[in-house]
Amino acid sequence: MTLSPALSITRDLLRCPSVTPADAGALGVLEQRLKEAGFTTHRLVFSEEGTPDINNLFAKIGEGRPHLVFAGHTDVVPSGDPARWRFDPFSGEIADGKIFGRGASDMKGGIAAFAAAAIDFVREHGVPRGAISFLITGDEEGPAVNGTVKMLDWARAQGEVFDHSIVGEPTNLEAIGDTIKIGRRGSLNGRLVVRGKQGHSAHPHRADNPTPAVARIVTALSTHRFDEGTEHFDRSNLEVTSIDIGNQAANVIPGEARARFNIRFNNSWTLETLQAEIRRVIDEAAAGARVEVEFLPCNSLPFLTAPGDFTALVAGAIEEVTGRRPGLSTSGGTSDARFITRECPVLEFGLVNESIHAVDEHARLEDVDRLTAVYKRILEKYFAR
Amino acid sequence: MTLSPALSITRDLLRCPSVTPADAGALGVLEQRLKEAGFTTHRLVFSEEGTPDINNLFAKIGEGRPHLVFAGHTDVVPSGDPARWRFDPFSGEIADGKIFGRGASDMKGGIAAFAAAAIDFVREHGVPRGAISFLITGDEEGPAVNGTVKMLDWARAQGEVFDHSIVGEPTNLEAIGDTIKIGRRGSLNGRLVVRGKQGHSAHPHRADNPTPAVARIVTALSTHRFDEGTEHFDRSNLEVTSIDIGNQAANVIPGEARARFNIRFNNSWTLETLQAEIRRVIDEAAAGARVEVEFLPCNSLPFLTAPGDFTALVAGAIEEVTGRRPGLSTSGGTSDARFITRECPVLEFGLVNESIHAVDEHARLEDVDRLTAVYKRILEKYFAR
Repeated sequence: MTLSPALSITRDLLRCPSVTPADAGALGVLEQRLKEAGFTTHRLVFSEEGTPDINNLFAKIGEGRPHLVFAGHTDVVPSGDPARWRFDPFSGEIADGKIFGRGASDMKGGIAAFAAAAIDFVREHGVPRGAISFLITGDEEGPAVNGTVKMLDWARAQGEVFDHSIVGEPTNLEAIGDTIKIGRRGSLNGRLVVRGKQGHSAHPHRADNPTPAVARIVTALSTHRFDEGTEHFDRSNLEVTSIDIGNQAANVIPGEARARFNIRFNNSWTLETLQAEIRRVIDEAAAGARVEVEFLPCNSLPFLTAPGDFTALVAGAIEEVTGRRPGLSTSGGTSDARFITRECPVLEFGLVNESIHAVDEHARLEDVDRLTAVYKRILEKYFAR
Repeated sequence: MTLSPALSITRDLLRCPSVTPADAGALGVLEQRLKEAGFTTHRLVFSEEGTPDINNLFAKIGEGRPHLVFAGHTDVVPSGDPARWRFDPFSGEIADGKIFGRGASDMKGGIAAFAAAAIDFVREHGVPRGAISFLITGDEEGPAVNGTVKMLDWARAQGEVFDHSIVGEPTNLEAIGDTIKIGRRGSLNGRLVVRGKQGHSAHPHRADNPTPAVARIVTALSTHRFDEGTEHFDRSNLEVTSIDIGNQAANVIPGEARARFNIRFNNSWTLETLQAEIRRVIDEAAAGARVEVEFLPCNSLPFLTAPGDFTALVAGAIEEVTGRRPGLSTSGGTSDARFITRECPVLEFGLVNESIHAVDEHARLEDVDRLTAVYKRILEKYFAR
């Protein structure tokens, strides 16, 4: 079976077991193809105490403006038990019109599609007036410390200026072209502890049980309507993710109760107003109980690339190739686009996300080729301006 | 310093570090004194797989009816860090008119007082018309499996019939004579699990977070008024003693949430009606969430020795010796009286409970002697009938 260039790169990438923080040769696969096509490449290893060293790749062709940067990650989440997979999760097997493997959709297939599109574009149209670059990290599924953030710092120090960015995350729900992400909600984690007084279950008046207060607080946080959503965002949503006391002794009233929560919040909030509102809800529900609230450092603020020329260009290319007019979404989790938004307008568009992080992750062969066609059409429209 | 017989026995008992399940010579101290006074004694070691072997002592003088049994325990709870104590917790030091040591009030002092009273009674009045016996276990503060329950079985098999019982637990709040316990609430433990569906915090619609339901259930259980109390009992009281999820991952909605609870319940409930009511409260609060409720085996049913001749006799003796008219209480935790109540009417009366289970546990010297006088007066009135 002869594979298209995009599928050939996809398969080569899938055969590298690049579970964060391992690179396992994945960036080399990409670097070689881009070098052969005339790209200048830089391998960047970043370190920080307490986190693993991470391999990253920056590649560029052309100079000056406009500068379109494609961002992505070659690292993948673990496969889980390989025995539950139809094929070895790092074999890139092809069957039933699909290519299987961890990262097929999230997002080795997307990277391969953009690489194939860019190589094809340069072969057909020559080096663009402006620049195309790749900003590929191996640290998106991990702590995201030694990846995109440090690459952007490095690029800035090199004098790189980005005008627009496309992140190749799998944004489509069912078919290539159904969804562009134009933003993402922010994510904030917090924890709280209700302090009571330990005692004997038979003498509750001598103790102060923290469980009723923590239950009131959990109810308040879980049911509070933080906002009504905004033009492009759903309502902010808080989930209490754990309640923990850890008391095994039936005749003991515990001394404290802990809870953790995560809120996915929209652009009607700043970190300060959101934290204040959460504290207000907790304090009101505590009704006098002693509660300490702590927020974890937040590196996931909401971002929005307001619909405009760039969105219209990308949506137009998608419609030309697929016949679908993509929806503009801000739903789902966070991505590295939250870092790139500080540099330039950023959109996310890639493969179908139905099988990501699951057993038998795969991409449809025709989807990889169609995505390649969309990316190439984007490049043509972008550099024709 | 010359000690009274009761204080001398107290000190000898305190010097045995009989932390459950260890006997450490404590029962031997008692056995020797009772033997010398003419009691027949039986050392009973009971075993059960999964629990430690326990030493127990049955001693008796006289035959036939009426038969008054004094019940108690020589085992004690751990001392905690001895460095926090004024004296070695197993030295029986005397200072400031008090005898110090783990178990001084709970309840080695009470046992010593009854032993001294009984020995004195026999010395003065001879062997009673009827019988006095001691049912002393080393397994009250522990699992209570190889102690009072098995001793009662053994005694029944020996043909022993008990007419009345006094348990020497420390019942008084401030001064000898202020409180007789005529009953105890029951204690029932339960646990529940709310089953939801695990998922990603960014996609709550694909998950089913069990924390709001567990919070509603905890609130309902904690605030439900189970009853209004009864003639001799306070209201039943439920404490949620733990809530546990154990989810460390902020971006994960947990799949299940667990809670544990303990209810101290009065004699308006049977085990069946109480469990049904708890299930009803949980189901109502669950509002459709999937909840499984499990009750642990209950060996602490409520008991009440309704005020009558025996209570009047004991209260009369207390008033004659102390000048105080004791209150009749059913408050506090459980005791081995819950087992003895199946055999005969049982009351609890002993030392002051202010320092029990605490650092520097002690008994006032005058209290031990006054309690001895009360017990002796009870014996005189009991066998004068």
